[in-house]
Parts: sequence; structure tokens; C-alpha cells
Amino acid sequence: MSVSAPTFFRSRWVERPAGVEELPPSMLAPGFRAAGVHCGLKQDGGTDVGIVVCDADEVSSAVMLTANAAAAAPVVVCRQDCDLRGVRACVVNSGNANAATGEQGLRDARALRDAAAAGLGVDPASVVVAETGVIGVALAAGVASAGARDAAAAVVADGGLEFTAAIMTTDNGPKCCTVRAGGVTVSAQAKGAGMIQPGFATMLCFVQTDAVVDDPEATLRSAVATSFERITVDGQMSTNDTVVLQASGASGLPLPEGLLDAVLLQLALAVVADGEGASRSGRIEVSGAADTEEAERVARAIANSPLVKTALYGRDPNWGRIAQAAGMALAGEEMPEPLPQTIDYEELGAASPEAEIGIRLGRGEARAHVYFSDLTPDYVRLNSEYPT
Amino acid sequence: MSVSAPTFFRSRWVERPAGVEELPPSMLAPGFRAAGVHCGLKQDGGTDVGIVVCDADEVSSAVMLTANAAAAAPVVVCRQDCDLRGVRACVVNSGNANAATGEQGLRDARALRDAAAAGLGVDPASVVVAETGVIGVALAAGVASAGARDAAAAVVADGGLEFTAAIMTTDNGPKCCTVRAGGVTVSAQAKGAGMIQPGFATMLCFVQTDAVVDDPEATLRSAVATSFERITVDGQMSTNDTVVLQASGASGLPLPEGLLDAVLLQLALAVVADGEGASRSGRIEVSGAADTEEAERVARAIANSPLVKTALYGRDPNWGRIAQAAGMALAGEEMPEPLPQTIDYEELGAASPEAEIGIRLGRGEARAHVYFSDLTPDYVRLNSEYPT
Repeated sequence: MSVSAPTFFRSRWVERPAGVEELPPSMLAPGFRAAGVHCGLKQDGGTDVGIVVCDADEVSSAVMLTANAAAAAPVVVCRQDCDLRGVRACVVNSGNANAATGEQGLRDARALRDAAAAGLGVDPASVVVAETGVIGVALAAGVASAGARDAAAAVVADGGLEFTAAIMTTDNGPKCCTVRAGGVTVSAQAKGAGMIQPGFATMLCFVQTDAVVDDPEATLRSAVATSFERITVDGQMSTNDTVVLQASGASGLPLPEGLLDAVLLQLALAVVADGEGASRSGRIEVSGAADTEEAERVARAIANSPLVKTALYGRDPNWGRIAQAAGMALAGEEMPEPLPQTIDYEELGAASPEAEIGIRLGRGEARAHVYFSDLTPDYVRLNSEYPT
Repeated sequence: MSVSAPTFFRSRWVERPAGVEELPPSMLAPGFRAAGVHCGLKQDGGTDVGIVVCDADEVSSAVMLTANAAAAAPVVVCRQDCDLRGVRACVVNSGNANAATGEQGLRDARALRDAAAAGLGVDPASVVVAETGVIGVALAAGVASAGARDAAAAVVADGGLEFTAAIMTTDNGPKCCTVRAGGVTVSAQAKGAGMIQPGFATMLCFVQTDAVVDDPEATLRSAVATSFERITVDGQMSTNDTVVLQASGASGLPLPEGLLDAVLLQLALAVVADGEGASRSGRIEVSGAADTEEAERVARAIANSPLVKTALYGRDPNWGRIAQAAGMALAGEEMPEPLPQTIDYEELGAASPEAEIGIRLGRGEARAHVYFSDLTPDYVRLNSEYPT
């Protein structure tokens, strides 16, 4: 048996798709180009504006946006102005989320989008704009727009890593891949480390493929439901969540079943593992619930409990805190004494970076699971020192 | 103007009741006696079993218990066995919460109660049992019951501080008072530092008075609604919350209006200020909400956001995180750009140990407020090292 380097699909919770081949993540799916440049939004000189664009005029796409009522300006602009089923290009910046910025924020987001569209020579209505970083601070719109023009001039077929760098904030490393199976290629780039609890997702994720995707919205929704909708870092729904799927159809072949799901689940788990200050990931599985909504409510209460999260960090198999959080989610209801699912329960106290926890409620047969990160002193340090 | 020592009523958010006199907190309200002893539940030799008892046969009382569906054994025993309107005595232990302990836990809680009742010579049905400490671990019932007998033999009129010591866990200091106004005396002892977010309260609190209280349940509910129901440390509803009011009526006089409310609010704020690892308290006031439920939901989302709590710790006036948490609480709804209430907003970044924060939603005229603690590295340290 040969020993190989860690692959993209490295979580115990992701099944490697059959016949999948991993390509360098710099290389985008055929027919897509991307770039990332530094324009000046990040004070440390980091890459802070990026563009990904499909060469084909006709693109089949889907976009999912945060449900946060305080949605950021770029999210509002996408909802109001964009043809979300025909996205040619995405322009992104990091360093400033352009959230809680009022009417000026909307003008700034549109200016950024228009600069990208002009640079690429595409219809502004076919450009998604996404932003991430500090919130409540006005965007340096001139700087960002100049960056977008530079990025538009720099897009290349192997620009995946530069684009990924352009969306990173407190991420410790890039989260991206390019994989090939069944004659089609999927490339994907994600970011996210804090403000992570889905309405659906709470991060940025861009997916490109040359597969034929007939119903991109259903395809994306289904893959997001089992990936970004199942994770939490800090229980905080972001103002800027955006997930984009662009399919050129150039290969003439469909997406192999499960490929997109596996890619997004591994990216989602990478977000959890790279959660702000995180040292470990957990998977809580709630069974024996009255219905799926209840199972999910209990799973989220456990995954977001700071007492459970600190126990995960402290490698403390603290069954009582898990039972307490479950009981809080079911406050006022009758609950038989819940049961730890002991086969994997000892993992909380073990060395594994991915701990499996189970609880059985005895109220029915429904189940749900959530992936979550631990709570560490580094989380507090990062978030009490993060600049406004 | 004379300079006096800090008084019990020291929060900026508590109005000192008219004509109130503070007595030593060791001295209970007339007609009550208490004690605290060490039996061996706390490994550091600390006081871990306590009793408070009313000398009068007839007591007018009210008891509020946690709504957590995984309620601890003592809570279940109080619900099932106790005459909550005629509580003569309370027996408590710290060091073990006797929660998530199954049928054996119920037997152990009853044994503790019976030992106290026998020692005091009162009806077991008139004894409240309350416990606090680690959860999910069987109680050393023989040790605790022996302690209860010792405590029953030791009760004295000035045993308030020993009793308070017997209920403390991760508390940094005692939270208790004895105050006199309008011819009546109120003594009260509370504990709580972690697992603090009310269904109503999430700690233990015992109140004794010689006032005449005709409707103790309504009186207690009303005072709790503006105190323990308004605080959060970690958003975690405890398995063991218990608040007891005992009124002997011996003075023949009613409770002065506002006295009990002020006592419980100051105790609740002491719980927040002494929240696990806490360095600062905040008061978030949400106005302009569509209704009170919405105002409360938004206030709790802000108060429990780890991003807001770390900003409070970091003295970072991070308006964006406050708007984000509000938007998360209103996910999927229309929200006009919320407004920081700037008069007090700068306090987030100031040196005050009690920071006032306001947000106005522009959806209506309802309002609500919540008191909360910050999130610090010490919180994580405490809870990742706390023994199971």
C-alpha cells in the first residue's frame, strides 16, 4: 500500500467520490479565468480584490444569499440588480464587508460591480458582487474599483489561488480545490472562519464547472443543505453570505452524482476546522427526536453552547453539558432521560481533531447532525482585537 | 458631601429604594435561621451544604424552577413532592448539581431533603432541595445527607454568610444582602456565574422576609421578571435554577413597593458582573421594535453574540456586530437600517465597568433590555478546565 499526501477530501465525514481526480487548485474548470490583486483595502498588503469570469456568453448559474435582515450592500445589490440565473462573473473584495453602511454602501457596491463589468466587457447585470471583512465601516470605493479594473485585466485560467487569496480574511489558509470526475471538472473557492452559522451558509463560496447543469438552483440548494447549512463556528449568521454556482455546460456532460455535495461538504468542514481560534471540530448527531425540526434545534443548541464548545476544546467528555443544552432546546417539554451514544462518545475526550458525539432523546425517530468548532482562548483574542 | 463605602445597591442600573437601611448580610430577616457546613462534596474543603429555615409554622412562600427539559433531580423532587406555597426550609448543596443522574439522582435528592427535615423536625414536604455544581455525576448522597444533619443542628439567626458560602461554585464572592425599609426586613442570598440565561433565572436565590406577602407567587414572578429574567452570561439555561421566597408575616407589615425588585435586580446584576471570566457588564436596550417579543429576541441575540461579547471585552465600539446580530434575529424580514443610539453608544469603548448600548430598529415602538457579561479568555480557561 502506498502512502500518499493528504488529499482535498481529508475529513472522516466526507466520502471520497468514486473515480475522482484532484487537479492543482490554481487551475479553474475549463472556460473560466480568475485573478486576485492587491488594491489597498487590506493594510498588510494582502490580495484583496478578485474576479472570476466565464468565457462563454451563456452561463447557467444559481446564487444563494444570506437571510440576515441587516444584509450587506453587495447582497442587496445582487438581489435588486443581478440576473442570478446568468452570472458571467463575480467580483469580490476582502478587508471590508460593506455592511451596515446605508445608501452610500449600495452606491459603493454598484461602483465596484460596474468597474468589474467595464473591465471585463460584460453586462453589469451579469456580475455578482461579494464583499467580506469589517462591518459598519464605509468602503474605500475608489480604491476597490481601481482594484477591480486591475483584476479584470489580469484574469487567467490558472488564477484560482490568487482569487482565493482575494476572499480570505481571518482564514488561516486557502480553501479551494479543482477536481475531475465523469468527464467534467469542478473548481471551487471558499472563505470563512468567523460569523459562521448558516441560514444556509455564512461565508463566500464560488463554484465553476464545465458540466451541464439543467437546474442550477435545485442543484446548489441540495448541495448547500448538506454542507454549509450543517456547520457552525460561532452561531452568528453573517450579513454577507454568498454562494455562487456557474456552469458553462461546455463539456456536454452532467455532474456526476455526489460530486458537488462532496466538494461543498469538504469546504464547509474546512471552514469549521479553520473556525476562528479553533483547535478541533465536532459532529453532533441527535437521534430519537420527535421530528427533524426538533432534532436540528437540539443539535444546534448543543453545537452553539459555549459550555460544550469549551469542553470540546478541553477534551472533557462532559455529558452533563450536552444533556443541559438539549434540555434547554426542549424547555418546558417532557423529555425522558437522554442517552449518550457511547460508541463514539469517548471521542470528546480523545486526541482526534474530529470528534463524533451522539445523543438519543427517546421522543421519536427523527435525527439531525451539525458540525461545529471548539471555543478557545484564541477565539476571544482574535475577536477582541479584530479592528473595526 | 460625605464619602461612604460601596453599598449593596451599587449598579448604575438599580435605583436605591427610598429609606432603605442596609444591615450586615450575615443577619437574616427576623424569625429565620441558617447555617453552612463542609461535608466533603467540595474537594477544597469549602462550605458545601446549607440550610435556611423559618421558625414560624405558617410560611407564605413561592418557588420558581427551571424550565429546562433536562431538569436536575432536586428540581423534579420539588415539583413532585413539595408544598411550594408552604416552604419552611431549604436545604442546598454545592459541588454537585445532581443533574442528568437518572432515578438514582431522585433518590439521592429525596434522601438529602429527608435528612434536613429530620434534623429540623419539619415535614419533608415543606423542604425545598436545591443543588449546584458539576452535572452528570452521581451525588455522594451519604456525605451530603450527613452534612444536612450537621447544618440542621447549626442554624443560627446570623448564619447568612455561611449559608451563602454553601451555595457558591465558580462565584468569585458572596452575593447576599439584608435590607430594612418600611418596618420590614428582607434578606437574600444568591449564587450564579455560569450557565446563566434565564428561562426566568439560572442560578439559586433564596429570599426571607418578615413582611406579610399575600400573593407570594405573583410578587416573586413580578420581581424575577425584571431581574433574573433580564440577564445572560452564556445563554445557557441551567438544569437547576431555583428561586425561593419565604415570608413569615411576623412584622404585620407589607413589603414596601419596589424593595424586592431592587434587591433581586442588584443580585441579578451581581451574577452578571461575576459571570465566569467576566470583566465588564453591558445593558443592551432595543427600541423601535414591532412588539415586545421581537424587542426581546433582538436584545438576546445581541447579548448572546460571542462577537458582541468579545467586542465588549475588547472595548471595541463595534456597531457592525450589533447590527449583524439584530439582523440575524430578524432573518428573512424587512428591516430599515438600524440606528445606534449614540448618546450612550460610545460607552462600549469606554472604561466603565457597566456599558450602556442602544439600538433603534424603526419597525415600531416596542422596547426591551437585557443585561449581559463580556466573553474573555478567562471564560474559556474556566470552562475548559472545570472538572467533570
